[in-house]
Amino acid sequence: MSDKKVRIGLLGTGRIGQVHAMSIGANPNVELTYVADVFVEGAKKVADQFGGKVTADPAEVFASGEVDAVIVAAPTPTHVDLISAAIDAGVHVLCEKPIDLDIARVETLRAKANGAKTLVSLGFNRRFDQQFNEIQARTAAGEIGNLEQLTIISRDPAPAPKAYLEVSGGIFRDQTIHDFDMARFFVPNIVEVYASGANSFSDDIKSLGDYDSAVVTLRGDNNELITIINSRHASYGYDQRLEAFGSKGALLATNVSPTTVKLYNDKTVEGRNPYMEFFLERYEYSYRRELELFVEGIQTGKNNNPTFDDGRAALMIADAATESAKTGKAIKIDLA
Amino acid sequence: MSDKKVRIGLLGTGRIGQVHAMSIGANPNVELTYVADVFVEGAKKVADQFGGKVTADPAEVFASGEVDAVIVAAPTPTHVDLISAAIDAGVHVLCEKPIDLDIARVETLRAKANGAKTLVSLGFNRRFDQQFNEIQARTAAGEIGNLEQLTIISRDPAPAPKAYLEVSGGIFRDQTIHDFDMARFFVPNIVEVYASGANSFSDDIKSLGDYDSAVVTLRGDNNELITIINSRHASYGYDQRLEAFGSKGALLATNVSPTTVKLYNDKTVEGRNPYMEFFLERYEYSYRRELELFVEGIQTGKNNNPTFDDGRAALMIADAATESAKTGKAIKIDLA
Amino acid sequence: MSDKKVRIGLLGTGRIGQVHAMSIGANPNVELTYVADVFVEGAKKVADQFGGKVTADPAEVFASGEVDAVIVAAPTPTHVDLISAAIDAGVHVLCEKPIDLDIARVETLRAKANGAKTLVSLGFNRRFDQQFNEIQARTAAGEIGNLEQLTIISRDPAPAPKAYLEVSGGIFRDQTIHDFDMARFFVPNIVEVYASGANSFSDDIKSLGDYDSAVVTLRGDNNELITIINSRHASYGYDQRLEAFGSKGALLATNVSPTTVKLYNDKTVEGRNPYMEFFLERYEYSYRRELELFVEGIQTGKNNNPTFDDGRAALMIADAATESAKTGKAIKIDLA
Amino acid sequence: MSDKKVRIGLLGTGRIGQVHAMSIGANPNVELTYVADVFVEGAKKVADQFGGKVTADPAEVFASGEVDAVIVAAPTPTHVDLISAAIDAGVHVLCEKPIDLDIARVETLRAKANGAKTLVSLGFNRRFDQQFNEIQARTAAGEIGNLEQLTIISRDPAPAPKAYLEVSGGIFRDQTIHDFDMARFFVPNIVEVYASGANSFSDDIKSLGDYDSAVVTLRGDNNELITIINSRHASYGYDQRLEAFGSKGALLATNVSPTTVKLYNDKTVEGRNPYMEFFLERYEYSYRRELELFVEGIQTGKNNNPTFDDGRAALMIADAATESAKTGKAIKIDLA
Repeated sequence: MSDKKVRIGLLGTGRIGQVHAMSIGANPNVELTYVADVFVEGAKKVADQFGGKVTADPAEVFASGEVDAVIVAAPTPTHVDLISAAIDAGVHVLCEKPIDLDIARVETLRAKANGAKTLVSLGFNRRFDQQFNEIQARTAAGEIGNLEQLTIISRDPAPAPKAYLEVSGGIFRDQTIHDFDMARFFVPNIVEVYASGANSFSDDIKSLGDYDSAVVTLRGDNNELITIINSRHASYGYDQRLEAFGSKGALLATNVSPTTVKLYNDKTVEGRNPYMEFFLERYEYSYRRELELFVEGIQTGKNNNPTFDDGRAALMIADAATESAKTGKAIKIDLA
Repeated sequence: MSDKKVRIGLLGTGRIGQVHAMSIGANPNVELTYVADVFVEGAKKVADQFGGKVTADPAEVFASGEVDAVIVAAPTPTHVDLISAAIDAGVHVLCEKPIDLDIARVETLRAKANGAKTLVSLGFNRRFDQQFNEIQARTAAGEIGNLEQLTIISRDPAPAPKAYLEVSGGIFRDQTIHDFDMARFFVPNIVEVYASGANSFSDDIKSLGDYDSAVVTLRGDNNELITIINSRHASYGYDQRLEAFGSKGALLATNVSPTTVKLYNDKTVEGRNPYMEFFLERYEYSYRRELELFVEGIQTGKNNNPTFDDGRAALMIADAATESAKTGKAIKIDLA
Repeated sequence: MSDKKVRIGLLGTGRIGQVHAMSIGANPNVELTYVADVFVEGAKKVADQFGGKVTADPAEVFASGEVDAVIVAAPTPTHVDLISAAIDAGVHVLCEKPIDLDIARVETLRAKANGAKTLVSLGFNRRFDQQFNEIQARTAAGEIGNLEQLTIISRDPAPAPKAYLEVSGGIFRDQTIHDFDMARFFVPNIVEVYASGANSFSDDIKSLGDYDSAVVTLRGDNNELITIINSRHASYGYDQRLEAFGSKGALLATNVSPTTVKLYNDKTVEGRNPYMEFFLERYEYSYRRELELFVEGIQTGKNNNPTFDDGRAALMIADAATESAKTGKAIKIDLA
Repeated sequence: MSDKKVRIGLLGTGRIGQVHAMSIGANPNVELTYVADVFVEGAKKVADQFGGKVTADPAEVFASGEVDAVIVAAPTPTHVDLISAAIDAGVHVLCEKPIDLDIARVETLRAKANGAKTLVSLGFNRRFDQQFNEIQARTAAGEIGNLEQLTIISRDPAPAPKAYLEVSGGIFRDQTIHDFDMARFFVPNIVEVYASGANSFSDDIKSLGDYDSAVVTLRGDNNELITIINSRHASYGYDQRLEAFGSKGALLATNVSPTTVKLYNDKTVEGRNPYMEFFLERYEYSYRRELELFVEGIQTGKNNNPTFDDGRAALMIADAATESAKTGKAIKIDLA
């Protein structure tokens, strides 16, 4: 492995962009050399703390010759163009999910992405969560025999603001897409999807023609039955659990608690404080690990992160789920 | 409440019949006065231990004037006739699930059952399980706000013998039917069902055109999304869990362990022995409680047990699930 | 094993006497033939429900020739005389703990008890608790290697009434004595005791010169260090835990919950209702099992219950603990 | 708070010294300006990674004018002199525990330490563990009423090498001293100690006249009973638990697991991998937090860390425990 620091340009300095900036700051093998955001003040603030030149224009970053890689944390509609530009510039790219909300646009980029000489990685950070990663590895190693069923419970603590929801692409393309990728982490080839959406609590979401709750059944090519249970809220915090059930056993991951402290009194026993607030707290480790693996990939030339095609597959499943929820029919899918 | 003992005739002395005999023996308010089984030796054995006259012919029981109630634990095809005979004889009846495997036969009895002056109760004993009963009661009392999602995980330890499976009516009518009733314990009016079946491990079951694994999504009339996850095997024992998720909280029941003892060593920590062997062990309490409530119903004239219509509803959902698994379409249902 | 029912006389019908009556009622191998209590109304009430002749005089029971065994649940000061009378009458005896509060009186009976041709068993029912019994058996079987440390946490939900406490003999002879016997269940030969008492909350108990809280360290003859932690109250219910720590692992028993249901909301997660109310609920099984083993002992001639000497040993340790708490010195003991 | 970076000299670059170096590297408010170790190679290695000038002589550090504070991670016998030199140089000092193994030497420094114009802090890092810190804070806030009992279970995974044990001062001054400080975190004024030591498994430790296992009972000035259970080994990993029991409830911290993943199979359910390897992993957070608070103390002039007198008190209790274990008597102590 080269011991030269990997020079990174950060494109986008919103909430997720700042998370990546922190990961960069904590990683001794990388150097933040450029920060780009049309909202230049945001870029400046990040650069003040973590270093790097500031620009409003990503093109300047690609032209600079001062970045080995970029992290794309700009709004979703920019992703396809920025990935494309990175490939043209011969720069490695780690792009936040999703590639785009429109599978047609994704397809136009597919051949180029897969033929790129630089890494094109997608930000499905949950694959790097200690719990889920451990279960996937132990399942793949045969510890529970043949995988038969996978159950993913994934509930946000509270809905995003309406302005965000309006451009989110709907629950399946925005929230469930993480779970679709998690399903594919265990079972890469999904062949069927059935989705049920419901409006249980949010008039805002209903008014957008979107769902606040959903249950999805996927079928893998080895007949694995995969269940995803989603909600846009959970009173007790961010609810992220996973259960792999196999012919010889099961592996379960319960929620991560910030503490092991339990209270016993005359009203309750073994109770604890509610769970981690949201994904920044819950998946803090996996964001850091994602960057580490991206850097390792750059240094070794071998991609360890989810690829462009992983991003495309998750969106195809999301599209099928959206159609299924509307039609009440199971939708066959072919990820090839 | 009357303090006269309720005189019970037991029809059928197979595995479940014997469970009922034990419940009767342990209940000071009832008396076993008749035991009927075409396999007379079985009836004799039960009567020797728990009392009662022995006969091969249920008609003798109904004609005797010596029973206030009967418990029907004979094979499923006899259920409709025996319920009907009990109503004719003016005798209360607690019948094991299902009423029948053919919804048409169930419909022919429906008006009579609902017009009966005696109790017609169905043996959905799991409603009386301490855990599930508590969750249902606390949910109904509003502790978790509006019920939005219900998740039932229900896996048998191992498949029944092939001879049994052949006449079982299939996984949905035989195993899932318990979970359909559990769903209706929380959400009586189910309006839609989508089911996925899979053949994951059993060639026997596959050869019968049946599934060994299934995932079902139900929708309630208040848009509740209900998920049922089934398997015909589980290496770690009988897997019976339930999770009610509401707008203000969630209530979960994990598996019941025979012990609180945990082992800590250099290979594992907090591990315990596998779960209860099967339903006789796991639901021992609920079988006893079922009888207690049936007896209370007889003494007070108010049915506290699942009714004939509850038995009919569960079978209607099972039929819809069977159709859904075959067609890949969500099936609307109307339980009225 | 003989199939003749064992005829039992119950001496004493207070709280514990009633527990034994219920165990007798539920056990098909025994028959309650006599019930004695100076408070005859109490005896009548028990006999009405569970059978047996009624008397105010235990001597009538021993003279009747109608009992094979007696269960002594009368006040502690009567125990020595009743055990002695049972031996004289050639009747098996199961006596509630303690034998007596005065070790000198116990010693006077020792030779006779140990030479008796009938069983003389002590009611240390906790040895039969599923959890503790399992840990002892697995420890004895070598599962955790050499036993090095034993930790017993034993807290009552609330103090007994002052009238009871006045004649209880103090916390060590009344409450801790159960834990001393539990220690001896694992490590029969205790060689040293150090006890600390404290007055943390009860003025009543303080006014009696007794302690409401205590910590005791015992040393076994293989240098095992045994810790007992007691309190006369616990806001969250009856607190009964045990931890055996060995060279190759540890076995732990946490409190027994009446339910597996857990609540998740915005204030707490994984919380449950407080623990079992008190010993009648918590040790219901062990009281029943105690009687079963006593009956088996009578039928086979082999005592499976704690013996007279077990009762004597526990009191000797309690006396040493009382002295230790007063003097601040470890007290050597010799149980031979 | 000043935004000037605090300049730190690290004295000692062994295992703990390296931990502090990493904390310094991760903390944006501090700068490592000097690294001293008689083993200069060790110092160089740390300086290469985290910065700072290198020297074999701590005196050079104090004379340099380039440090605002020092962290003392050199061998215990040097602690008193280095603390003294830091005070003379007007430099803040955070010293690893213990101050010294000889209470007489500690006393000679006491007045100077308490009169120092710079901070003199002790490295009892466990006070900053999330779990224990939370329990202490909630207990102090009255959540469990009046604190009555405190139970600390603290077992190392395996004994240190014999060479270390020889100069460790014995189990009470080396291992238990952390627990004595934890006891004082909850109950500052300890008035009595009784200790039992045992040789359960290590011939090495026995040959040194030391114990491999110990149980200690402390009494606080409000009659709190505190139990400490120690072992020099635990097959299942580093065993660090704490339970605060009060008049209105209890707060418990179980061991910290590296994962929430649980395995279910035909041999065990709910089992997980063994616990964290040892203190560097288990208390990683608390080492970082310790440094943060030390830096805050320097910037604000208010000591938030354990003080010199906290270090002295823990050693006094350790000395009393050593005496108690030898004599079999409770030892009164006066920490004033």
